[in-house]
Amino acid sequence: MSNPTAAMLVIGDEILSGRTRDANMHFLAGELTKVGIDLKEVRVVSDDGDAIVAAVQALSVAYDTVFTSGGIGPTHDDITADNVARAFDVHIDVREDARALLAAHYEARGWEINEARLRMARIPDGAALIDNPVSIAPGFTIENVHVMAGVPAIFQAMVATVLPTLTGGQPLVSRSVEIRRGEGDIAGPLAELAGRYPDLSIGSYPFQRDGVFGANIVIRGSDGAQVTAAMTELEAVFPS
Amino acid sequence: MSNPTAAMLVIGDEILSGRTRDANMHFLAGELTKVGIDLKEVRVVSDDGDAIVAAVQALSVAYDTVFTSGGIGPTHDDITADNVARAFDVHIDVREDARALLAAHYEARGWEINEARLRMARIPDGAALIDNPVSIAPGFTIENVHVMAGVPAIFQAMVATVLPTLTGGQPLVSRSVEIRRGEGDIAGPLAELAGRYPDLSIGSYPFQRDGVFGANIVIRGSDGAQVTAAMTELEAVFPS
Repeated sequence: MSNPTAAMLVIGDEILSGRTRDANMHFLAGELTKVGIDLKEVRVVSDDGDAIVAAVQALSVAYDTVFTSGGIGPTHDDITADNVARAFDVHIDVREDARALLAAHYEARGWEINEARLRMARIPDGAALIDNPVSIAPGFTIENVHVMAGVPAIFQAMVATVLPTLTGGQPLVSRSVEIRRGEGDIAGPLAELAGRYPDLSIGSYPFQRDGVFGANIVIRGSDGAQVTAAMTELEAVFPS
Repeated sequence: MSNPTAAMLVIGDEILSGRTRDANMHFLAGELTKVGIDLKEVRVVSDDGDAIVAAVQALSVAYDTVFTSGGIGPTHDDITADNVARAFDVHIDVREDARALLAAHYEARGWEINEARLRMARIPDGAALIDNPVSIAPGFTIENVHVMAGVPAIFQAMVATVLPTLTGGQPLVSRSVEIRRGEGDIAGPLAELAGRYPDLSIGSYPFQRDGVFGANIVIRGSDGAQVTAAMTELEAVFPS
């Protein structure tokens, strides 16, 4: 039985211009691996409505679950919510439950709830809110798409809220070994091993350090006994 | 006149499993911005032939230039070259020019040029080799797709080789200012400013630091005088 699949959509000009280095993809990848959900694809698009619509539609059809990050703040370049609604052809407007959350938060601080802040209460009809313990403005879930903030602290909090609601699979067991041989020497025996363990994923990640060539070999699979057996065979071929 | 467009395709299970944090996207984004090529989309896919073919075909049609990273080493999970050839329906085999490069390199070191290492000489018909000053095994350019290594030092060297061959556009001029106000207070005037400068890209990147809310506002455009004018107006609304 194969694991549930997921995709991620990162939205933001600042990533594509090189101004900001995305941190959310690496975080989400690690969290999904822990619970046995296979992250199969990530796309990064700019703050462009048509690009967001096309990516949401393609990914939500192709994978079990989609996570988006970015573009749900109060400024004019925050256009994710409206375009996710458009992707599903669903009506969107300021929604009372989200507005009430924001109003309580801002009133307690003596801040004005102006038109810009109200943008953050724009939630598609039928979507479920995702809690934002950092700055209140919620994310939302519509169909199989979870729409979350780009600020890493908020993104991480939202992932922690959403993950327990998903059905995971078999968490991957992973073992790795460093082999101090050129990848070209390792490749033959490794391909032979991979052929005999078709249920395992065997990856080779080369490095060059202090003039020494080597590779980290990572064996992954949901059956821990198989992973151990394959690793034992590999270590017999390349004793450390 | 708009700038040339580009996309990037990152290939590798290790990124999607969270084992490795990709560094090449951020590097390429910065380099392209410097020469006025607009990076419009990035995709990350696993070591899966069909996924690679589909992404190469979609991106090479949609954008002027495509850069790939990863999957061109000697091991069984290095399947990029064969699938890029498949995406363009072009024959691929060990090619003499690439084989000669590798043979000279390995012979000088007394290493065997075995079947695994010969995989790195598999180059599609008609492709031009991209120099690899780090470990010799070349990348290649076919149609508008530049196929490069995933190891960051090699990726960066290959980008340095390829970039001067591309026609750039107007490099973006970028100015930024930190405003220590909640994004909800900044958003209204910012939207108004963005409306009056349709040729500029105006982004707001919020932060929360030591309990203070604020945002970095970045104004980008190819016309430096316009960028300066817009920034001057912004600073008049939010004096520091």
